[in-house]
Amino acid sequence: MLRFESDYLEGAHPAILEALVDSNFEQAPGYGTDPHCERARDLIRGLCEAPVAQVHFLVGGTQTNQTVIAALLRPHQGVVSATSGHIYTNESGAIEATGHKVLALPTEDGKITAEQVRKIHADHFDSPIAEHKVQPGMVYISHPSETGTTYSLEELTELSRACRELGLPLFMDGARMAYGLAARPEVSLSQIARLCDVFYIGGTKVGALFGEAVVIPNPALMPDFRYHIKQRGGMLAKGRLLGIQFEVLMADGLYERLGRRAVEQAGRIRAALAEQGFGFRYDSLSNQLFPILPKAARESLGREFSFSLLQRLDDDLAVIRICTSWATTDEAVDRLIAHIKQL
Amino acid sequence: MLRFESDYLEGAHPAILEALVDSNFEQAPGYGTDPHCERARDLIRGLCEAPVAQVHFLVGGTQTNQTVIAALLRPHQGVVSATSGHIYTNESGAIEATGHKVLALPTEDGKITAEQVRKIHADHFDSPIAEHKVQPGMVYISHPSETGTTYSLEELTELSRACRELGLPLFMDGARMAYGLAARPEVSLSQIARLCDVFYIGGTKVGALFGEAVVIPNPALMPDFRYHIKQRGGMLAKGRLLGIQFEVLMADGLYERLGRRAVEQAGRIRAALAEQGFGFRYDSLSNQLFPILPKAARESLGREFSFSLLQRLDDDLAVIRICTSWATTDEAVDRLIAHIKQL
Amino acid sequence: MLRFESDYLEGAHPAILEALVDSNFEQAPGYGTDPHCERARDLIRGLCEAPVAQVHFLVGGTQTNQTVIAALLRPHQGVVSATSGHIYTNESGAIEATGHKVLALPTEDGKITAEQVRKIHADHFDSPIAEHKVQPGMVYISHPSETGTTYSLEELTELSRACRELGLPLFMDGARMAYGLAARPEVSLSQIARLCDVFYIGGTKVGALFGEAVVIPNPALMPDFRYHIKQRGGMLAKGRLLGIQFEVLMADGLYERLGRRAVEQAGRIRAALAEQGFGFRYDSLSNQLFPILPKAARESLGREFSFSLLQRLDDDLAVIRICTSWATTDEAVDRLIAHIKQL
Amino acid sequence: MLRFESDYLEGAHPAILEALVDSNFEQAPGYGTDPHCERARDLIRGLCEAPVAQVHFLVGGTQTNQTVIAALLRPHQGVVSATSGHIYTNESGAIEATGHKVLALPTEDGKITAEQVRKIHADHFDSPIAEHKVQPGMVYISHPSETGTTYSLEELTELSRACRELGLPLFMDGARMAYGLAARPEVSLSQIARLCDVFYIGGTKVGALFGEAVVIPNPALMPDFRYHIKQRGGMLAKGRLLGIQFEVLMADGLYERLGRRAVEQAGRIRAALAEQGFGFRYDSLSNQLFPILPKAARESLGREFSFSLLQRLDDDLAVIRICTSWATTDEAVDRLIAHIKQL
Repeated sequence: MLRFESDYLEGAHPAILEALVDSNFEQAPGYGTDPHCERARDLIRGLCEAPVAQVHFLVGGTQTNQTVIAALLRPHQGVVSATSGHIYTNESGAIEATGHKVLALPTEDGKITAEQVRKIHADHFDSPIAEHKVQPGMVYISHPSETGTTYSLEELTELSRACRELGLPLFMDGARMAYGLAARPEVSLSQIARLCDVFYIGGTKVGALFGEAVVIPNPALMPDFRYHIKQRGGMLAKGRLLGIQFEVLMADGLYERLGRRAVEQAGRIRAALAEQGFGFRYDSLSNQLFPILPKAARESLGREFSFSLLQRLDDDLAVIRICTSWATTDEAVDRLIAHIKQL
Repeated sequence: MLRFESDYLEGAHPAILEALVDSNFEQAPGYGTDPHCERARDLIRGLCEAPVAQVHFLVGGTQTNQTVIAALLRPHQGVVSATSGHIYTNESGAIEATGHKVLALPTEDGKITAEQVRKIHADHFDSPIAEHKVQPGMVYISHPSETGTTYSLEELTELSRACRELGLPLFMDGARMAYGLAARPEVSLSQIARLCDVFYIGGTKVGALFGEAVVIPNPALMPDFRYHIKQRGGMLAKGRLLGIQFEVLMADGLYERLGRRAVEQAGRIRAALAEQGFGFRYDSLSNQLFPILPKAARESLGREFSFSLLQRLDDDLAVIRICTSWATTDEAVDRLIAHIKQL
Repeated sequence: MLRFESDYLEGAHPAILEALVDSNFEQAPGYGTDPHCERARDLIRGLCEAPVAQVHFLVGGTQTNQTVIAALLRPHQGVVSATSGHIYTNESGAIEATGHKVLALPTEDGKITAEQVRKIHADHFDSPIAEHKVQPGMVYISHPSETGTTYSLEELTELSRACRELGLPLFMDGARMAYGLAARPEVSLSQIARLCDVFYIGGTKVGALFGEAVVIPNPALMPDFRYHIKQRGGMLAKGRLLGIQFEVLMADGLYERLGRRAVEQAGRIRAALAEQGFGFRYDSLSNQLFPILPKAARESLGREFSFSLLQRLDDDLAVIRICTSWATTDEAVDRLIAHIKQL
Repeated sequence: MLRFESDYLEGAHPAILEALVDSNFEQAPGYGTDPHCERARDLIRGLCEAPVAQVHFLVGGTQTNQTVIAALLRPHQGVVSATSGHIYTNESGAIEATGHKVLALPTEDGKITAEQVRKIHADHFDSPIAEHKVQPGMVYISHPSETGTTYSLEELTELSRACRELGLPLFMDGARMAYGLAARPEVSLSQIARLCDVFYIGGTKVGALFGEAVVIPNPALMPDFRYHIKQRGGMLAKGRLLGIQFEVLMADGLYERLGRRAVEQAGRIRAALAEQGFGFRYDSLSNQLFPILPKAARESLGREFSFSLLQRLDDDLAVIRICTSWATTDEAVDRLIAHIKQL
């Protein structure tokens, strides 16, 4: 069985394992205060062209979303998100557990627009009983989104402008950042650092064993963030492990390279599916594909390959999800394409 | 500089790194559902002689304490702990962040007694206005405690009996479990599984990169625990990493061996300190030592070795903490002892 | 200006004020432990034919919803509600502030069905990644609903059956209970006590200065509820004030009478509006009316009467809300009807 | 049985009941937006010489403490309080339920000092691992304290200065404010408004049916406080009831008069107890007395009068609490004194 159901199926890029082995018996202080973390922070500041940014390393995505959102909001505020947002659908109520409502906006493609944000803000503050409702306090987006789509530079610029005019910090979940950078090169890390108030560069799905790097371009926004990390259980005792991994990922263009490669592999699979006449539920150019397949094709494919079943459309058709990742081999893609051509 | 200030200074035991490298390109489902986790669970059930126990893997200690306590308590209940308990002093309010008060009991040596638990329970339920106060809902202990002491089998048996009579689940924080097993062999994992309602076997401080294994001997106690792990941000996407590490640690007596070795090294250092006439703040037989040193001795030691300053007693004397760990070498201990002999 | 915008515009029924004056210098113990509360509890148990029910008095509706829901749910659970539910739209995130998500079901008329509850339950528990989502833990309904509709006995029976089969406590918000009893007499308090697991009888909107009586027919469901009331700030020091008010309301059929009268007044207004050819947004037979009026009619009406603007349908038409209450006089209704006839 | 066990045994001052009756059929908008509330706010601003102060009315003390504290703190912060503080001992974990730890300072007399506040602040921020601990975020005091003592103007001035230098908002719980004003006239409402950042003027224990008036001298400190009130369940639908009561209490010196009278009554009882040779546990000059009585005296007294048993000192002696209030009559005090003289 070849697995394509997610982008965290394997361990880590070999260069990361090597760095962990090499540094294993160094003695380092804990909790992210070691030299590896310092160097990784500097690399990230450089790539983001954000010289005074705070950079913090956390272990996983749900933890990062929860910690950032709880740190930014006041008790009476909620976070604006697409209905497809990971925080709304797949985090077991982690945001609500910190006391905050997710204010969900309808979306067709996983993205939200500046106009939607302006509207929910106006609807709230124009209400004569605003204080009976949850106040929008920040905006959460993901790039790429949960449906594989990405924001154009123009879309992101407009969203950022709306957020800043309205006083709503803009937070980008970058769990799959490398795949977004590859799918939409015009939106670079430095553009993101310029347009978002806080974002993270995902490691777990892009070659690390685990780890997400939170970037806060203006450090005045979240002055006590280390307390929040500790309080939410996200401060790794051996913080060096995060530093070492991001030192490797962020050096010599490795992170971007891993992203590009996975996106190219996905492109080959997409072309094969399209050639066979299959449609797609979402127009994703990143590492996730959402083809619509009849039952027979799904069953045939399922005998050799694993994928996720996303949504049944009728008795026959269903949307599945196929993911590539930094670890996807040419051979695996070749075998999948060969199979697709026979569907 | 040789470091003795904590027991998480190095990476992982080489056998763990090797297992991570060997398994790196296996494709495995996420979130703890992979075969490595299954095997590690079985090993732990075996060592604990708890055949139906639920075993869950989390990343770190604060996260584990927070998740277990929030899962066990009802909103109006608090957790009973020693004033020295990690949850009371060093977790940035992680327990309160889930809505619960820590009901702290005074302690001289880091341990609490069955009698104290009976008293706080009676004081609460005998009050005519009990509902105006926080109801004791469970008991938290650590073994070894934050001051290096351990519960005797008799003490633990009495505490367990009190807790069960009073309907208070007993939770043991085992972040340093291996060192407790070595310092107090009569209290074995199977005794702990018999006497505690939930406990964890710490990996972070005993040879793992990270990881804590929560054991729930009676699975009916916490039926939906996986939801709680996910909600608190503790469910590692690549859960295999936890499974692989505990497979190594729990096999062939490695975990106990690592504990014994660190405790022997601590014993050698303790003997050297005692021989020089230094007293100890806490009577610890585990891997942490709390000698009382005059300023001159601290300064001399500090030129070559790192340690933690715990408490100033007067202008001259202070308590320091010296830790050994699974990674402490004979050479490091020899050098430290040689230095101590010249103080 | 005659006001029809809500049902809490006046003080209290004169008999309640009289009872407060008469009892004013009695000395009574606090927090709901006084004889008035005891008598009021007995009256309620009698009316509900629920002889062992726990009865608790709280001050207001949001507080009651928050306290009941937080007391019933476990941290990983959410409360199922209609999208129009008060807890979803108008309580400033009070439920989320206790850590719980509101799982909103679409509704046209403010009610949810047994089938919807079965579906959301099945969707959750059939998911292979259920623990990544919020578990449905209870069901919240309001009767009458926020749109004035009421559950038929059959609908409520089916909903109750579904909830019990699925292990989901059914909670009825009865802030306007008297108006529901009048609009739908087949659903009596004793039927409600038989079919719901917890509900409240609203006083604030039906003749009391304030106060909601929570009824828990099976006291084993929520054994420590007084702690929850205190913790959420809902335990009134002079609890007697709640007892005294419910003693008056629950005696001699006053509560039902007040409800019937307001519903009759609403019926007269509804008939006048219908006669003039106005449509209604919701098919309410209780004390709230939701007529659709053109701009000119709204402006004309607004010169003499206050009402709430609920929703603009187009440039001309909008839905308004007109409420009657226990305090609405014949004269006020006559004047309103006279005005309507000239629209 | 004459009751002296608390200061909320009776209903309300007759002038309040009269005002409620007189205004009963006025129609008023809800939630504190009515003219009575506006007038009461103006009266309070005048008495406090705080012309731009925000004034909000809540129903009870625990609710007020919870709402103010949760509104002021950030998630990683705790509230500093005396160990005798109501929020630490008698609110069922209401503060922790909002996610915050109460950082308790030892006290002999129910008060905390500027020096203690400076020390806890320094201890925290001087710690090399501050982010592993709860950050002090504000200071809570009560005046009079739970043990009847009051802050001198000098003590309060020093505390205020320390808080402002350290950036810690100072919050005064004034549940018994009138009795404090009477016991310590130098500390007037305008002094309190100058020295505290937020405080409340208690109505429940001083002649109102219920109600606490929160005063925020600098409105910029808590700009969205109405949201917090609503979210915590404290926004009374018929807010007018609070406005009407405070209109009466705050006019013509009634509030101060009620306080003075109760304190005089307490003074007479204190003198009688002292004359009989009984000692006092706390040196209270306000409306609460804490005499130390032998068993025989307690039993004799208990046959005619109710009081609270606070603390057993040995087999014979115990501390009791005797309260007077706005409603305590001369006759009741005469009877109590006559009995005391025969002890």
